[in-house]
Amino acid sequence: MTETRDEYDTLGKVKVPLEANWQAQTQRSLENFPTGEKMPLGVIRALLNLKKAAAISNAVLGQLEKEKSDAISTTIEELLLRSDGELRADFPLSIYQTGSGTQTNMNVNEVVAHLASTSQLTILPNDDVNRGQSSNDIFPTAMNIVAVEATTKLEQAVQTLIDSLRVKQEEFWTIVKVGRTHLQDATPLTVGQEISGYISALKHDLVYLQQLRPTLYELAIGGTAVGTGLNANPKLGECIAIKISALYGFPFSAKSNKFYGLAHHSGLSVVHGAIKTLAADLMKIADDIRFLASGPRAAYGEFNIPANEPGSSIMPGKVNPTQAEALTMAVLRVFGNDTTVTMASSQGNFEMNVYKPVLIAAFLESAELLTGTIIGFAQKTIAGLAINERRMEELLENSLMTVTALSPHIGYHAAAEIAQKAETEGLTLKAAAISSGLVSPSDFEQWMDFAAMTNLERSEKE
Amino acid sequence: MTETRDEYDTLGKVKVPLEANWQAQTQRSLENFPTGEKMPLGVIRALLNLKKAAAISNAVLGQLEKEKSDAISTTIEELLLRSDGELRADFPLSIYQTGSGTQTNMNVNEVVAHLASTSQLTILPNDDVNRGQSSNDIFPTAMNIVAVEATTKLEQAVQTLIDSLRVKQEEFWTIVKVGRTHLQDATPLTVGQEISGYISALKHDLVYLQQLRPTLYELAIGGTAVGTGLNANPKLGECIAIKISALYGFPFSAKSNKFYGLAHHSGLSVVHGAIKTLAADLMKIADDIRFLASGPRAAYGEFNIPANEPGSSIMPGKVNPTQAEALTMAVLRVFGNDTTVTMASSQGNFEMNVYKPVLIAAFLESAELLTGTIIGFAQKTIAGLAINERRMEELLENSLMTVTALSPHIGYHAAAEIAQKAETEGLTLKAAAISSGLVSPSDFEQWMDFAAMTNLERSEKE
Amino acid sequence: MTETRDEYDTLGKVKVPLEANWQAQTQRSLENFPTGEKMPLGVIRALLNLKKAAAISNAVLGQLEKEKSDAISTTIEELLLRSDGELRADFPLSIYQTGSGTQTNMNVNEVVAHLASTSQLTILPNDDVNRGQSSNDIFPTAMNIVAVEATTKLEQAVQTLIDSLRVKQEEFWTIVKVGRTHLQDATPLTVGQEISGYISALKHDLVYLQQLRPTLYELAIGGTAVGTGLNANPKLGECIAIKISALYGFPFSAKSNKFYGLAHHSGLSVVHGAIKTLAADLMKIADDIRFLASGPRAAYGEFNIPANEPGSSIMPGKVNPTQAEALTMAVLRVFGNDTTVTMASSQGNFEMNVYKPVLIAAFLESAELLTGTIIGFAQKTIAGLAINERRMEELLENSLMTVTALSPHIGYHAAAEIAQKAETEGLTLKAAAISSGLVSPSDFEQWMDFAAMTNLERSEKE
Amino acid sequence: MTETRDEYDTLGKVKVPLEANWQAQTQRSLENFPTGEKMPLGVIRALLNLKKAAAISNAVLGQLEKEKSDAISTTIEELLLRSDGELRADFPLSIYQTGSGTQTNMNVNEVVAHLASTSQLTILPNDDVNRGQSSNDIFPTAMNIVAVEATTKLEQAVQTLIDSLRVKQEEFWTIVKVGRTHLQDATPLTVGQEISGYISALKHDLVYLQQLRPTLYELAIGGTAVGTGLNANPKLGECIAIKISALYGFPFSAKSNKFYGLAHHSGLSVVHGAIKTLAADLMKIADDIRFLASGPRAAYGEFNIPANEPGSSIMPGKVNPTQAEALTMAVLRVFGNDTTVTMASSQGNFEMNVYKPVLIAAFLESAELLTGTIIGFAQKTIAGLAINERRMEELLENSLMTVTALSPHIGYHAAAEIAQKAETEGLTLKAAAISSGLVSPSDFEQWMDFAAMTNLERSEKE
Repeated sequence: MTETRDEYDTLGKVKVPLEANWQAQTQRSLENFPTGEKMPLGVIRALLNLKKAAAISNAVLGQLEKEKSDAISTTIEELLLRSDGELRADFPLSIYQTGSGTQTNMNVNEVVAHLASTSQLTILPNDDVNRGQSSNDIFPTAMNIVAVEATTKLEQAVQTLIDSLRVKQEEFWTIVKVGRTHLQDATPLTVGQEISGYISALKHDLVYLQQLRPTLYELAIGGTAVGTGLNANPKLGECIAIKISALYGFPFSAKSNKFYGLAHHSGLSVVHGAIKTLAADLMKIADDIRFLASGPRAAYGEFNIPANEPGSSIMPGKVNPTQAEALTMAVLRVFGNDTTVTMASSQGNFEMNVYKPVLIAAFLESAELLTGTIIGFAQKTIAGLAINERRMEELLENSLMTVTALSPHIGYHAAAEIAQKAETEGLTLKAAAISSGLVSPSDFEQWMDFAAMTNLERSEKE
Repeated sequence: MTETRDEYDTLGKVKVPLEANWQAQTQRSLENFPTGEKMPLGVIRALLNLKKAAAISNAVLGQLEKEKSDAISTTIEELLLRSDGELRADFPLSIYQTGSGTQTNMNVNEVVAHLASTSQLTILPNDDVNRGQSSNDIFPTAMNIVAVEATTKLEQAVQTLIDSLRVKQEEFWTIVKVGRTHLQDATPLTVGQEISGYISALKHDLVYLQQLRPTLYELAIGGTAVGTGLNANPKLGECIAIKISALYGFPFSAKSNKFYGLAHHSGLSVVHGAIKTLAADLMKIADDIRFLASGPRAAYGEFNIPANEPGSSIMPGKVNPTQAEALTMAVLRVFGNDTTVTMASSQGNFEMNVYKPVLIAAFLESAELLTGTIIGFAQKTIAGLAINERRMEELLENSLMTVTALSPHIGYHAAAEIAQKAETEGLTLKAAAISSGLVSPSDFEQWMDFAAMTNLERSEKE
Repeated sequence: MTETRDEYDTLGKVKVPLEANWQAQTQRSLENFPTGEKMPLGVIRALLNLKKAAAISNAVLGQLEKEKSDAISTTIEELLLRSDGELRADFPLSIYQTGSGTQTNMNVNEVVAHLASTSQLTILPNDDVNRGQSSNDIFPTAMNIVAVEATTKLEQAVQTLIDSLRVKQEEFWTIVKVGRTHLQDATPLTVGQEISGYISALKHDLVYLQQLRPTLYELAIGGTAVGTGLNANPKLGECIAIKISALYGFPFSAKSNKFYGLAHHSGLSVVHGAIKTLAADLMKIADDIRFLASGPRAAYGEFNIPANEPGSSIMPGKVNPTQAEALTMAVLRVFGNDTTVTMASSQGNFEMNVYKPVLIAAFLESAELLTGTIIGFAQKTIAGLAINERRMEELLENSLMTVTALSPHIGYHAAAEIAQKAETEGLTLKAAAISSGLVSPSDFEQWMDFAAMTNLERSEKE
Repeated sequence: MTETRDEYDTLGKVKVPLEANWQAQTQRSLENFPTGEKMPLGVIRALLNLKKAAAISNAVLGQLEKEKSDAISTTIEELLLRSDGELRADFPLSIYQTGSGTQTNMNVNEVVAHLASTSQLTILPNDDVNRGQSSNDIFPTAMNIVAVEATTKLEQAVQTLIDSLRVKQEEFWTIVKVGRTHLQDATPLTVGQEISGYISALKHDLVYLQQLRPTLYELAIGGTAVGTGLNANPKLGECIAIKISALYGFPFSAKSNKFYGLAHHSGLSVVHGAIKTLAADLMKIADDIRFLASGPRAAYGEFNIPANEPGSSIMPGKVNPTQAEALTMAVLRVFGNDTTVTMASSQGNFEMNVYKPVLIAAFLESAELLTGTIIGFAQKTIAGLAINERRMEELLENSLMTVTALSPHIGYHAAAEIAQKAETEGLTLKAAAISSGLVSPSDFEQWMDFAAMTNLERSEKE
């Protein structure tokens, strides 16, 4: 039996564990909402920073006694020094609570009030810590802040992968290999060119994230309950935004439309759209790498990837593309999260959207999953990527599809017939070409210059 | 600095924390895959049960010494007594690891081997604990087992909600109210009829889950690495299935096609399809309840729901439909998970699907989230649902759409004109009807029998 | 300038093209809703059949004069003889209209009334053709009917593909090949075993469709506007269901809960869940086939698929897996449709769901797209599938992963070391095994029996 | 029996209908791919424009005789004058064909060649019309062009809706109403403020589309088969881009990475991400409008929307929010298309993505569906939106939640108690406040200034 103390809210008495730093509303939520993952701690940290900024701003604006403001600030500074595990102890609520995030906001208000109060000074959760705020504006404000943080880290991870790929682009710039379209052998390109396509995709994705990030700088703070700013000092929102900008190093602002800010989450939806676009590109790249590294002997076998662990519990000697697997599993989770984020952002009603906790949790999971698995893929797969140059040469020489190089000289139909003859009779392309009477051996050598076919001089490194 | 000991696998030496019960491959995974949620403990428990069943079966089949089998069994029994927190300490790997779940399978093999070994008896992770198995068959076997468990609990939760709704169906069976289609006032029905529609939907969902559940009884066990059963005793799979059936109380079987079992996850995909169907129905029901309980004064206001907590940090006296919010947030998570599950089940290649961990994690999350939030909704919202009978009566008497009742008597066009006159001139329907000259006061009373319009005698309770 | 005639509805006068068979409400919809694909003709045909059944039933029940019933029936019979192009001329409305499908219901009512009326007999759209019905019950009734039709055809297509695969399973039952897991070479299996996995998946999908189909037999007819059956003869619903059952050959019934039938579409959602499950399996199968047929020389090259067309406008001689491409594009469309269907089925309010047209259109598109592309894939790819037996043998002999066969004899670690030695030094497995001193040449021959490793005798054909 | 002529390609003879303007490959596709919607004509028109630009460019670059270039250009100009119906006759292929769009590219090549050839001049589909191109570069080039066109039209439609909403924002700027959060009555705001939130959301969406649109200006043209530009003049791509830019009025360019351009469709994926974000905002706005216009008497009833058609086939006098229904059905289709686009863009392999036709078809459908339904919603619902000012006033005066205005004066707890008293005892807020002894009648009047509570002076029109 846990010992308890009595706490009260407008609904009456609640028994709270004696040692708990929260009060009545947190306790009710804990009992009423036992299901699902817990609210990400990033959201808690952002709320704590906001509460501190609010306390200082309220003091400056004459809305809160300096003494209370100081007590709140000091308490929050101490809370922010805690490790994740220590922080969780006081912030135990689930994502699947009220859809405004009110209960998490109250959890923060209550813990700060409880810890900041002394025998001389009573700090109240609503009247002091939540002063001039409503869950309805402070929670979406925290959402955008953590989204900016997470997106920025994701951008850094993408840059890490780009950097790893650039080393390989440079290293293999001139190595010629068979191209493949429709999974069928096609005309040659260089490994460096192929990798430049991957880098280009990732650079595009980075640009999208950077272009869209500013929409997340728009904070709902100052709107309070329905967007009108009722009960808040008119300068409070922007005052908080300035402090938060200085703290986080991003140009946050409270100037945008509050009715929009409480009821729509367009910014999170569109940025997640860029994240799913990145995820799709990652799937293509990871699939390519693992197929090109497939084998070792009965598949493509063009690439070698590092063996980070034994591949199988029964088949000794096998090395699996595990980093690619973790990355692509994360990709499918991101695709699922995109469905959740999109639908969540569509389901606002009137002055509010009550899908905030699940929306931000899905957003953060996407950003953090990709950040982690991209870095793993960059450092443990791409950084150690090697090629089987001999295998590439064999496949190229054995290929029929370089017949395309003959097409400008002897026409499409004649070239096609040579390729078909080689295929049917199991000949090399050279033998079939010469036997056609349309191509002399020296023509063949001259025209069938694999390196020339890559037009490498037209390509730029990414 | 953590103290370490040296462990070895086919790739060489690995430093493992001294007190850890795992060995080399778990340690490698821990270092190589630091990202994302951890493997659900339900999967670990199912694997432990399977390892015990395998050890006993192997002993019976003469594939493993009795002494080793006993040591493995005893160790597993002790592990299964642990709380979740205690269990996690030894099973710390992420979902985002190798796509076959091999690392979690090895984690289980290693911990069991480590704990079961004594100075007299060495138990090897691969040769003993994993005897006759491969990650490729044992992991999908565990997936189906936990899916059956989770689905069964979900079915019970749905039944709980049905039971709660049945009480209200009974209670409000004859209370007449305005119907609404296109959000517009329509002809009357009873509250009980309306609730019978909810119950009917949930009963359908329950049938779907029950119809489809047997597909999950088909276990991949016995297929080993590629489905051929190489290196396993031909009776091992079915022998394990029999033991597992006895333990879990479901008719599991190892008789189905193994090439299918390793590379496809059709069963999980289709059952999750039934779960998303249930989720969609829950969204409709929860949306109805919260709209009908909206107000208290400036909206529908037909229902009253219990106040489980203060509704707002700034607006005193407000009671929010928080259980419905948690439930519908869970619904959107399930919709996202359905995208993940569907795509994951489409991405197998050749003899394997390497999206197993994310697939089962998403599946379990869906089942568990709905289980928890359904029960909360049933117990904390539906059980306390009350109606505002007076409000319902007022709305009904004030409604124009009961004009439909005149249509059989005076024709569609004439009825429509009466309704339009009432609307335009702000009249009651009765006044407009009588002023049309087509309807006498006594006709009106007789024809406009709201209760009769519900045809309640034709309806059956669900 | 089109010549027009005047038509009237409760809102007033509408100019309708002189030759058009529709009346005021269809014309309004045509003008108000110009966007998007048109309502599938399958829905129109089902509504026509229902209107005929309703007319006859109403006559039998004494609700409609025999003369009118006959006129309606005869008109509908003539309409149903029309080709799709001819039918479209009179049913030109978009899917993106009112969410109840009312406008399409009125389109049918109006055209039938217009064509059935003579100088002696006036048939009214609402009072006669729509007698005892509402869009709210007749439209979802038509939805279920066309869904059953489309699903049945899809099941036949799946059976066609199973039949094609069975021929190949039989043909290649004993041909041994390299297995592949994680895209890496694994232990052998036969081509027939591999194909048996595909067949097993499709058989499962067929069972799901057949298990779930009965939920679609439940028709909303009889519920009229809000589910109470107001203004309909109490026997009308079941009377129509009996006639429709006889016509379509399925046991349709009107006995289920009407409040559910108008406001939920659980049946369509869950059956579409089975369709997306099938789609996922098709993606896996089609991906396998096209990868195994990739090459001709620089990829897997195990399979040959028929050349149905020249593969490229620039690369002569190339044969692309185009049927697989069409099929997998259809699969992704089905995945998208599943999102639409799920979300649509979640968005009902009170007595109605107003996403009916988009829901049924997406459902039908999925069923029809898969039906067509499955048949193409079966007939134009699987039926002509051939194998490169020599290539399979080479890959197998060259493979390292058959080392697994040594594991029971010399232990996991020793076997792994042999494989690693062969890999590192470019040796065959045999050379590496013998040089290890643990395996004699005769041991190797005996243990390394590829056919034996497939355990073919344990496998059953599907 | 259709009369036919013989046509030939590299696979042999094909019977083509005598009057058809296409040749062998189109005919094969028609027979091999009978399933699904046809390729959007926008794609055909873009390809025609590209073929003309290519012919002129090739002539300028000395790659094609002036005479042939002229014949091709003239033919294309004539084709582009055709109506959609006339154009379809010659371009009958399905979306569900080869995944590169090769068959549609060949369809265009063949029809142009056929129509441009005379007895004096033979134009060949591959060697002349497709000169310097491959399906692999020309088809994705056409995809981006039509996507830019469609997106631009969508932006105009959004602007139309913004303009309509601005009129209403202005008209209702000062009208005070009850706010609603969690569907519960909340503090007041003005109708204009509420609408300003909608406008703000749409303005954000417009910015996203405009920010992202430039990524679609990057054309794959010049990459030919695998991205290396083999067989194309090095200046051809940019030369075509310049002509296309002049024609369409957008700054298209051929300078970006071709390996990316053929194998990734990040641009289409991220722009579709912005389209789904817009769709989500539209759902919120349309849901609000239809709920606020619900009634006429038994629901919110704050707004009146125009009656564009009779609402029901059975309930006379009912007016349904049909434009909102069409729009939100389109929204759910867009959500489904986003799943398809995302997944399609993830499934490239090596030098190609073979989901091009389904990807661009889904993209265009989204853009066009929203364009049409937005315009309908703007013109037929928003433009005629009126308010029930009296209803708004009544609801406001009856509301309890304005108690928030007392909170700064008497504290949170006391205010909450007043609200609860009013709720429990059925009092007005005023009566409850005064009876509390904490608020005098004159305080109440002064503090409870609804207009003041909206802080309208702080709000800016959007």
